[in-house]
Amino acid sequence: MPKLDLSHIEQTNRTGYPAPFDEPVQGRWYRRLAPPTGLQDFAASHVVLKPAAWSSQRHWHDGEDEMLIMIAGEAVLIEDEGRTIMRAGDIAVWPKGVKNGHHLINETQEDCVFVAIGGGKKHDIGGGYSDIDMLFTPDGYFRKNGTGYDTDRIP
Amino acid sequence: MPKLDLSHIEQTNRTGYPAPFDEPVQGRWYRRLAPPTGLQDFAASHVVLKPAAWSSQRHWHDGEDEMLIMIAGEAVLIEDEGRTIMRAGDIAVWPKGVKNGHHLINETQEDCVFVAIGGGKKHDIGGGYSDIDMLFTPDGYFRKNGTGYDTDRIP
Repeated sequence: MPKLDLSHIEQTNRTGYPAPFDEPVQGRWYRRLAPPTGLQDFAASHVVLKPAAWSSQRHWHDGEDEMLIMIAGEAVLIEDEGRTIMRAGDIAVWPKGVKNGHHLINETQEDCVFVAIGGGKKHDIGGGYSDIDMLFTPDGYFRKNGTGYDTDRIP
Repeated sequence: MPKLDLSHIEQTNRTGYPAPFDEPVQGRWYRRLAPPTGLQDFAASHVVLKPAAWSSQRHWHDGEDEMLIMIAGEAVLIEDEGRTIMRAGDIAVWPKGVKNGHHLINETQEDCVFVAIGGGKKHDIGGGYSDIDMLFTPDGYFRKNGTGYDTDRIP
């Protein structure tokens, strides 16, 4: 059926981030929506952020557009310009190549829920992180001096 | 700012549907989100359906994946298999080429709101309608005998 039964789609909190950068995303529980539905043109994730969880390290993509649609709860969007509250119905867009690192943090005591849309692997040429010594490429995570981290990235 | 200020994005109810197929979508008020934000990888629309409005004629796309995310109110999704209620947080997906015509109808007395994501013009090879003598191609609207309708399609 076109309406998704989320209870039948695997939910995971796995991450490829090396320690200690993995710690803030332990409470990020996500479902990849394209693989079980056959979507090819773009990628999508349904994400539940537990209280205190981060959506990611503060990052940008060099080759992939992103859109986020809040559907429940509240989170704080953090980027270079500061903090913006995001609530159900709010939409944010990050065009590829704009090096304005962004992430959401759930500072409330309740879960918040959003859908994140991206161009997907065909557009993945990597990107950067604003606050930590890390960048990403299709091959994985690296320090800014070019040495690799010993984890596998989950694109 | 990445968070969209919808009040600054044009909202329209225009349609290229020929009469009388345009009538049920008069209460569909939408904002195209890609042009004002610079998104290129996919297309997105923020849509408000007034009471009794239809999201479209019941249709499918041959070349373009679609996803719909309900963010407020309630609508009925209608497709070959029947009726499904869609409420805030519900998500539906239509992979390209599946000839299962679908649309949403707002049968309530309140507005409903959703975001529709599509692969965009680069994937637009046309598609069909389940209930009326019409099909669409990148060149416009046609009867099933191949004769054209005298309106301009808005892709």
